[in-house]
Amino acid sequence: MREFELIGKAKELFRVERKDVIVGIDDDCALVDVGTMLALTTDCLHEKTDFPRGIKPEEVGHLALAVNLSDLAGCGAKPLFFLYTITLSNRWIDNFERLLKGMKNLADKYNVAIVGGDTDFGDELHISGFAIGKAERFVGRDGAKVGDKICVTGLLGKAQLSLEQLMNGLGRDEIAYPDSLFKPEPKVEEGLRIAEHANSMTDISDSLAISLHQIAKASGVGIKIYEEKIPLDHLTRFVDYKKALELFLYSGGDYELVFTSKKPEYLEIGEVVEGEGVWMVRRNGKVEEIEFKGYTHI
Amino acid sequence: MREFELIGKAKELFRVERKDVIVGIDDDCALVDVGTMLALTTDCLHEKTDFPRGIKPEEVGHLALAVNLSDLAGCGAKPLFFLYTITLSNRWIDNFERLLKGMKNLADKYNVAIVGGDTDFGDELHISGFAIGKAERFVGRDGAKVGDKICVTGLLGKAQLSLEQLMNGLGRDEIAYPDSLFKPEPKVEEGLRIAEHANSMTDISDSLAISLHQIAKASGVGIKIYEEKIPLDHLTRFVDYKKALELFLYSGGDYELVFTSKKPEYLEIGEVVEGEGVWMVRRNGKVEEIEFKGYTHI
Repeated sequence: MREFELIGKAKELFRVERKDVIVGIDDDCALVDVGTMLALTTDCLHEKTDFPRGIKPEEVGHLALAVNLSDLAGCGAKPLFFLYTITLSNRWIDNFERLLKGMKNLADKYNVAIVGGDTDFGDELHISGFAIGKAERFVGRDGAKVGDKICVTGLLGKAQLSLEQLMNGLGRDEIAYPDSLFKPEPKVEEGLRIAEHANSMTDISDSLAISLHQIAKASGVGIKIYEEKIPLDHLTRFVDYKKALELFLYSGGDYELVFTSKKPEYLEIGEVVEGEGVWMVRRNGKVEEIEFKGYTHI
Repeated sequence: MREFELIGKAKELFRVERKDVIVGIDDDCALVDVGTMLALTTDCLHEKTDFPRGIKPEEVGHLALAVNLSDLAGCGAKPLFFLYTITLSNRWIDNFERLLKGMKNLADKYNVAIVGGDTDFGDELHISGFAIGKAERFVGRDGAKVGDKICVTGLLGKAQLSLEQLMNGLGRDEIAYPDSLFKPEPKVEEGLRIAEHANSMTDISDSLAISLHQIAKASGVGIKIYEEKIPLDHLTRFVDYKKALELFLYSGGDYELVFTSKKPEYLEIGEVVEGEGVWMVRRNGKVEEIEFKGYTHI
């Protein structure tokens, strides 16, 4: 988790006291006031660590936008504009147009205008994205209240399961959930709807465990989830129960949202409690601590 | 100029008809209307092509922000917010804090809030920046009027001269203009002032020649500059006249602005004329075409 140490340094250094900066570098998105409340976010992807073997150029473009739309969704912001930088390695130059088309298809779906880009050349394909959204009701990680229910928008572990199958030699048509891995859908509309009632929210980038820790810490609360509430059938068809549970808790890439609210919806898995830390009540009644860990890279 | 071909494809694909997108992917910055008029821009830098040998970590951070502030300046926008993505190669991890401090020093100077970042790891140092500014009077490349004077904010060719000296073996304390190469100053305040009267403007990224071609084409005009108005003393101290003129016209990295206006200021070098293309009147009265070329990489 070297990444989190470095992020910590940046947060410390870039803390600002400004009336127009409501949320700074601390959350999925920044929240700024320019007369209108805007959510700003950025994310980068590169070939060696973020793109599974066999990915199509259109899917690369899709992913680069999707990862940023997911950040906006995680704050309940409506996406408006997107800008990108692309460093093309030789083998990607001929696929540049297909990559852009994948980006555009997703942009059109959510009415996002792609208004800027910078293109250059290097040894590895590298894409950074920058998205701007309108945040009428910005939901950060820091608003969880004791008594809130913990909910996620969908089943977790599908992307990592599929990735592991791919790395074990299966083809992209043979893996369990190819769309979860190659063309995940950012939960844009869900995020907007949930923002109407949620007290805290974030998208699940690295793992459910990490997202829950981030909410618990930012909100000054504890979080308890129940093993018996965690659906695993979508995973136990392919792996044993223990592995399935690990995938659900500790893997990322599914582009789902986790939120806390007095009005549970989607998949309810636990609740916000007094105290600190993230805990799981096992089927046998024992309470175990959920570690701060996740698969941050493929 | 493969880069420009690819940019052309992106422009074609991402053309949008939306009331809130006033200027799309065509200029230094996009201009969007969110109640307030905002200029948006992005630029990326990477180690092999953009950072001269011997650059200090603080200067890398400075450059990553400066290149984006220069884009905003080139549209007459006042910078407000900045976000970055950084891919750190091993030898840069220990220098990460120094890099961020260089970024922050420049941000503080122009009251820019750094509100977002994404940090990961790879084989090559890579930084993308995204800047947002307030554009009360956005000046694009497309507004040049016949009869406007052509002006630049400062002397050109210093960065490339210094780079070539460095590549020829001189140390960073021996080259002619180390600050032009390692720590160029974006012309933020100049851009804001010029925007009050200029009809067109852009920052000079690749070369004066390329910027003039971009203005001429976007505005549907011709541009004529005069050799006798081009100051070269700052270069002829180090190289011969022919090379000096080439550096002034065809090299980038000086972070100056070029603009057209009925009220010339700074350094006036020519005028906007009917027709098309970019031309230079030589001292002997002959008129030569200025080519679309520049040093786009180190």
